[in-house]
Amino acid sequence: MDKMLRTIVANALDEDIGPEDMTTTLTVGPEIRCQVRLVSKDEGILSGIHVFQCAFDLLDAQVQDWQSLEDGSPFGRGDIIATFTGNARAVLTAERTALNFLQRLSGVATLTRRFVTAVEGFPTRICGTRKTSPCIRHLEKQAIVHGGGATHRHTLFNGILIKENHITMAGGIGTAVTRAREGAHHLFRIAVEAATLADFDEAMAAGADVILLDNMDIDTMAEAVRRAKLSSVLLEASGNMTLDRVRAVAETGVHYISVGMLTHSAPALDLSLLVDRF
Amino acid sequence: MDKMLRTIVANALDEDIGPEDMTTTLTVGPEIRCQVRLVSKDEGILSGIHVFQCAFDLLDAQVQDWQSLEDGSPFGRGDIIATFTGNARAVLTAERTALNFLQRLSGVATLTRRFVTAVEGFPTRICGTRKTSPCIRHLEKQAIVHGGGATHRHTLFNGILIKENHITMAGGIGTAVTRAREGAHHLFRIAVEAATLADFDEAMAAGADVILLDNMDIDTMAEAVRRAKLSSVLLEASGNMTLDRVRAVAETGVHYISVGMLTHSAPALDLSLLVDRF
Amino acid sequence: MDKMLRTIVANALDEDIGPEDMTTTLTVGPEIRCQVRLVSKDEGILSGIHVFQCAFDLLDAQVQDWQSLEDGSPFGRGDIIATFTGNARAVLTAERTALNFLQRLSGVATLTRRFVTAVEGFPTRICGTRKTSPCIRHLEKQAIVHGGGATHRHTLFNGILIKENHITMAGGIGTAVTRAREGAHHLFRIAVEAATLADFDEAMAAGADVILLDNMDIDTMAEAVRRAKLSSVLLEASGNMTLDRVRAVAETGVHYISVGMLTHSAPALDLSLLVDRF
Amino acid sequence: MDKMLRTIVANALDEDIGPEDMTTTLTVGPEIRCQVRLVSKDEGILSGIHVFQCAFDLLDAQVQDWQSLEDGSPFGRGDIIATFTGNARAVLTAERTALNFLQRLSGVATLTRRFVTAVEGFPTRICGTRKTSPCIRHLEKQAIVHGGGATHRHTLFNGILIKENHITMAGGIGTAVTRAREGAHHLFRIAVEAATLADFDEAMAAGADVILLDNMDIDTMAEAVRRAKLSSVLLEASGNMTLDRVRAVAETGVHYISVGMLTHSAPALDLSLLVDRF
Amino acid sequence: MDKMLRTIVANALDEDIGPEDMTTTLTVGPEIRCQVRLVSKDEGILSGIHVFQCAFDLLDAQVQDWQSLEDGSPFGRGDIIATFTGNARAVLTAERTALNFLQRLSGVATLTRRFVTAVEGFPTRICGTRKTSPCIRHLEKQAIVHGGGATHRHTLFNGILIKENHITMAGGIGTAVTRAREGAHHLFRIAVEAATLADFDEAMAAGADVILLDNMDIDTMAEAVRRAKLSSVLLEASGNMTLDRVRAVAETGVHYISVGMLTHSAPALDLSLLVDRF
Amino acid sequence: MDKMLRTIVANALDEDIGPEDMTTTLTVGPEIRCQVRLVSKDEGILSGIHVFQCAFDLLDAQVQDWQSLEDGSPFGRGDIIATFTGNARAVLTAERTALNFLQRLSGVATLTRRFVTAVEGFPTRICGTRKTSPCIRHLEKQAIVHGGGATHRHTLFNGILIKENHITMAGGIGTAVTRAREGAHHLFRIAVEAATLADFDEAMAAGADVILLDNMDIDTMAEAVRRAKLSSVLLEASGNMTLDRVRAVAETGVHYISVGMLTHSAPALDLSLLVDRF
Repeated sequence: MDKMLRTIVANALDEDIGPEDMTTTLTVGPEIRCQVRLVSKDEGILSGIHVFQCAFDLLDAQVQDWQSLEDGSPFGRGDIIATFTGNARAVLTAERTALNFLQRLSGVATLTRRFVTAVEGFPTRICGTRKTSPCIRHLEKQAIVHGGGATHRHTLFNGILIKENHITMAGGIGTAVTRAREGAHHLFRIAVEAATLADFDEAMAAGADVILLDNMDIDTMAEAVRRAKLSSVLLEASGNMTLDRVRAVAETGVHYISVGMLTHSAPALDLSLLVDRF
Repeated sequence: MDKMLRTIVANALDEDIGPEDMTTTLTVGPEIRCQVRLVSKDEGILSGIHVFQCAFDLLDAQVQDWQSLEDGSPFGRGDIIATFTGNARAVLTAERTALNFLQRLSGVATLTRRFVTAVEGFPTRICGTRKTSPCIRHLEKQAIVHGGGATHRHTLFNGILIKENHITMAGGIGTAVTRAREGAHHLFRIAVEAATLADFDEAMAAGADVILLDNMDIDTMAEAVRRAKLSSVLLEASGNMTLDRVRAVAETGVHYISVGMLTHSAPALDLSLLVDRF
Repeated sequence: MDKMLRTIVANALDEDIGPEDMTTTLTVGPEIRCQVRLVSKDEGILSGIHVFQCAFDLLDAQVQDWQSLEDGSPFGRGDIIATFTGNARAVLTAERTALNFLQRLSGVATLTRRFVTAVEGFPTRICGTRKTSPCIRHLEKQAIVHGGGATHRHTLFNGILIKENHITMAGGIGTAVTRAREGAHHLFRIAVEAATLADFDEAMAAGADVILLDNMDIDTMAEAVRRAKLSSVLLEASGNMTLDRVRAVAETGVHYISVGMLTHSAPALDLSLLVDRF
Repeated sequence: MDKMLRTIVANALDEDIGPEDMTTTLTVGPEIRCQVRLVSKDEGILSGIHVFQCAFDLLDAQVQDWQSLEDGSPFGRGDIIATFTGNARAVLTAERTALNFLQRLSGVATLTRRFVTAVEGFPTRICGTRKTSPCIRHLEKQAIVHGGGATHRHTLFNGILIKENHITMAGGIGTAVTRAREGAHHLFRIAVEAATLADFDEAMAAGADVILLDNMDIDTMAEAVRRAKLSSVLLEASGNMTLDRVRAVAETGVHYISVGMLTHSAPALDLSLLVDRF
Repeated sequence: MDKMLRTIVANALDEDIGPEDMTTTLTVGPEIRCQVRLVSKDEGILSGIHVFQCAFDLLDAQVQDWQSLEDGSPFGRGDIIATFTGNARAVLTAERTALNFLQRLSGVATLTRRFVTAVEGFPTRICGTRKTSPCIRHLEKQAIVHGGGATHRHTLFNGILIKENHITMAGGIGTAVTRAREGAHHLFRIAVEAATLADFDEAMAAGADVILLDNMDIDTMAEAVRRAKLSSVLLEASGNMTLDRVRAVAETGVHYISVGMLTHSAPALDLSLLVDRF
Repeated sequence: MDKMLRTIVANALDEDIGPEDMTTTLTVGPEIRCQVRLVSKDEGILSGIHVFQCAFDLLDAQVQDWQSLEDGSPFGRGDIIATFTGNARAVLTAERTALNFLQRLSGVATLTRRFVTAVEGFPTRICGTRKTSPCIRHLEKQAIVHGGGATHRHTLFNGILIKENHITMAGGIGTAVTRAREGAHHLFRIAVEAATLADFDEAMAAGADVILLDNMDIDTMAEAVRRAKLSSVLLEASGNMTLDRVRAVAETGVHYISVGMLTHSAPALDLSLLVDRF
């Protein structure tokens, strides 16, 4: 995972810098060190502090005197999230990339926490989807965990989930589930999407291990939960889940609720780097 | 640019797929073709249709009968944005990645358009910042253009812009501007940030070509515009720009307004891929 | 998968060729085409014919008139497995790499078939392990399928399997299974190794979904099968499995038998490329 | 060479792990160290101990207290080959890859030693061919040396060797040797394959520096040796060489015997990693 | 920049070494250290000493006792430019690559210094072009600075410069300049080539910020300078600039003179590495 | 070789272009085609026409109507070397890179031809050294062949050549040659440098296959040739070879003369691309 983190941050630094940060090279001496404070102008839940730190390390900022909150910590407006000293050139060159990650990931963690709080008291777990920012999925998946959510399939190689379009192409839920069961190795469960109760019954009959209740209304979901009572099947609700509606969904008794907006539409938090000569 | 586009999309596909899309391989026959409709559940401005298409091409989906709106086009709820036929396996495997790009980029274009509309009648140009989603900056920069905005510096190698932290480390605006002028090649302008009118005057005296009015109130900006009247200096306003405030900023007469939220907090549009056997 | 195949073959060609195949460049004219027959000096089951073909394609051999057996086909001594025509330089340069893959993969498929035949009449599936040739695992996993075996976990990200060393480090089977259940996403089953019946009972009590009976004797395995009768747990036998012993293992009623030697010690088949001017 | 070793091991780790070793992450604490013993269940010759160690180093296992036999050392059933301590997570994640290399390479060295022993008393050198496991050739070439064999051409850029198919395409041994001589740089010898004594005479007449006696019987080889007596030409015997036959080949007086099965069919040794908390 | 330097040197080492430096491995023991003196057989200006050093570092030469002149320093025939000790194998393997860089880059710096000296007394700056050695441009750009020259556009993304062929394709200087002004971001100046005074006037009228006087004779350039007197436009002379002619060009009053031969035809200096056992 | 060519040209294009050729994108329409003439302002020998063409192909210039001289052809001042049509954007973006290669490589071929001509009548072959432009060695080696020279060792893996520094570290010529002979595979000759006749005798006694006469005067070389008369050893003269001196060296009877300046100091030819609308 650390290797993946470093690869993603290195790509982002390359994208932001290109061959050289000319402004910094020209205006800041090579040996100057600076004292840095990372301050929040919003309140939220922290995620990505290791990603943030990694950006400076990859540019050889020789970070010292590091102090910071841990991922998953809450913070308020005006709070100091981290302080450290480092080589001024490297700090200024990495600054934007480091902040871009931290603002977005903390935005994801903060929104996740709001969903988790909304279902408090129910055993239901909040989890994400594959609707993530391209190229930084693994970091956003971690941000969901930092916000108190559960993980979900990371890649198409990391779990079997038969969606509506697969069913259309396979010619039916039964066929699709049977094919997956025969070809997949035995460490995988077989999950399948159901849009109606008829779909649901077909999925149950086909022996699916996990059923996604996709875009169902509350009553339909509740009925699906009832029908699954005596089985060991796991139920996941999905489809345009909002803060307004999530608690009612949890009340139906589904085991998981997956929420696309956690990653595709969480607003960034406003964080700022204050730098002094050291 | 095309090469960069392909590289980004290939990375995103790798991230989403991993070694293999097992569900699709197991449930969908290798030779089946499908008919695809891309439908919007939101209204907005399109950006990323070539990125979307590229995802299918990179998986050898053998796309045919392609019809689509062009980037920059407005569309409404329920509109069909594109239709095409292709190999079903490749289409289903690329679907999520293709949509993740298009939903986000169209979100950026749509928000940009709202800012552009807000300053209609003024010559002021709306542009973005470097607060972009890591690893897909170049696509988000294009989305801003599709929304009617102007481009800005892409990388730290792509322009000289002396920010507050550079000034602190250099020991003053004058020193920083002079160093940049001497070391930068002559095809670059020298831009510098000013937080106060005193900064502004110092930047003018140092011969800056572009001055960023950072987080100034309207009156201060207006005064800066007045002081710059007789010079050829270009003025850019920046700092937590919102739709509520942007028109008043334009009224001051600044040439450019850069808006971070265009890329760091634009919500994704809701787009959906409907697939039928063909 | 095709992308992975091409990457592996390209790496192998680079390894074999280096900057240039000097012998071929110096002795064979650039435009000459040749007629090729691929002949077997052994009998066995074919695997890797697409890998074989890929080697020529990657060197732009302009292959035509291709005819070949399909993966999974049996063949005998002296049989012609494939015929084609192509550019002579490319064919000669790719020859060794193409054959190295085909000889090894067909060796794996052939040995797998012998194991599968040995358990004929039982529902038990033969599968491989992670004891594969470094850097070509995915091809060897396919070779097992071509030989009639079942697939298994490809990578450490592709399934949860708690082995003896994990248990030692976690402090017990119960702890390990519980931790995995809580942290893994819900599309995964939890598999755990058991070396004794006490281990087995602990794994059952912890709610494992799959239990590996590791290096157990036949009687112990049979007892484990009895104890699992009323549950839905899946049983896999593993550990130095040989052709002599595999049928007795299948008789116990385990669902899967995983066999390391399929990939770590299958002897290569003897295949040969005969080339004529065309 | 070290760089190549690291690249190969890194590829193999990537192949085995994928994005993350989930089982280990979930069941083993991040800071636990363990005591490791590498034990053999077979007897043989060691090769690949640096490859083995490299796997742990690449995952930052912080290996300490390392003690091991050296490559080329003989060992017996039950012998401890290496002991060390390291971070438990990294050790468990690297274990399979490290062992896969060591088992295979030691298998190659062990088989090579048997061939070398079989020709003891003759000056003949045993060497390998290009029939190696794809992507790990350089390690298998070293394993042959560890077993007491000689090195041979590593890549097609690393020596000139005109084989039967080149001769067919060039239109004869004479033409092929002449073309190679004229175009190759003067630090290379020119080697050519001969299947018959007529071929052999043609190769001698063409001034070949090295002649491969390919699939000849013992008497024919002996006659070739006689005909080469007064020249400085080097002779290499090749073609389905077995332990039964190799001593008789050495008796003919050829300088080199190349043996394909050293790398394409050497069975893996059975090695095992025992881990305790530390 | 350091990352770019390391990448370039690593590529050059790979190109020179391939998989292994066999001669050194076979003839020099792995642990021997040596004492190295870098001696010049020419006089000139040093450039590339960090590139030189980097070659040894990348091969883990464990360099110690390093002493050297700095880039930009003049040296004479027989001068010792650097001394150090290091691992003998690594030193010998890196030697040729390290010298190839240093000889070429110092050749560029030396020729640049001659041009700079030729225009002494004038404010005109000597700069390079994009006619650099493929794949090492950034190092040659630095060599020009070490020789006393000015930097110029590094890449086609690093500045806007409209050349004659662009003008032909755009249909005129005016169109081309206007298009560039509208589409380029505001941190760029717009530069355009002029081959005649008519071109020059058109460029002035179009509002170009920088005008390249391409292949003009001295009188024409002088007239262009006169016409630009009252504007803020920057003038650059280019086109087959030689040492004989450069002073006369500077006398015209142009601000910059770009010289292709600085990088495309500077002869290498003769430098030599003397090695002793240590 | 073609793969290597494409890799080198792709790197050079990346270096020259960066993310995008802004000037061309902004000033030239995407669909315009142009007619191109490549004209020489110098006389010389062509090398690199396929490299030149490759630059356009890699940018998808859709080249048509291609006509050109072949590598190795002589041309005069004002001659048209190639004509073609292509997409104007791609042509303008690739122009500089394509020319940078062709000017340099033709410079190498042209200088080589002068050396070859200087030794006309002698069997001596002119060849290059490893003193090549970093990262484009293989192209410069081909340029030497296009100029009529012979190839030589490409990489340190591509031949055994014991140089003075190896001898110093090994402790003598005899030791070094013996070690190389024992460890190198039998398709390599063993070459060694000799600076004096004593060195030469030692090299002969050690059984070297090739001896480099390094920096010897004519009389010493002639004596070395005499002493080698009855052996099959090959002799190569090297060391600061110039056009003035090369014929006298050839007269001594050495087989090869290696000339560093062919690649480290050949001046670029002046070539130019003329473009019209089409």
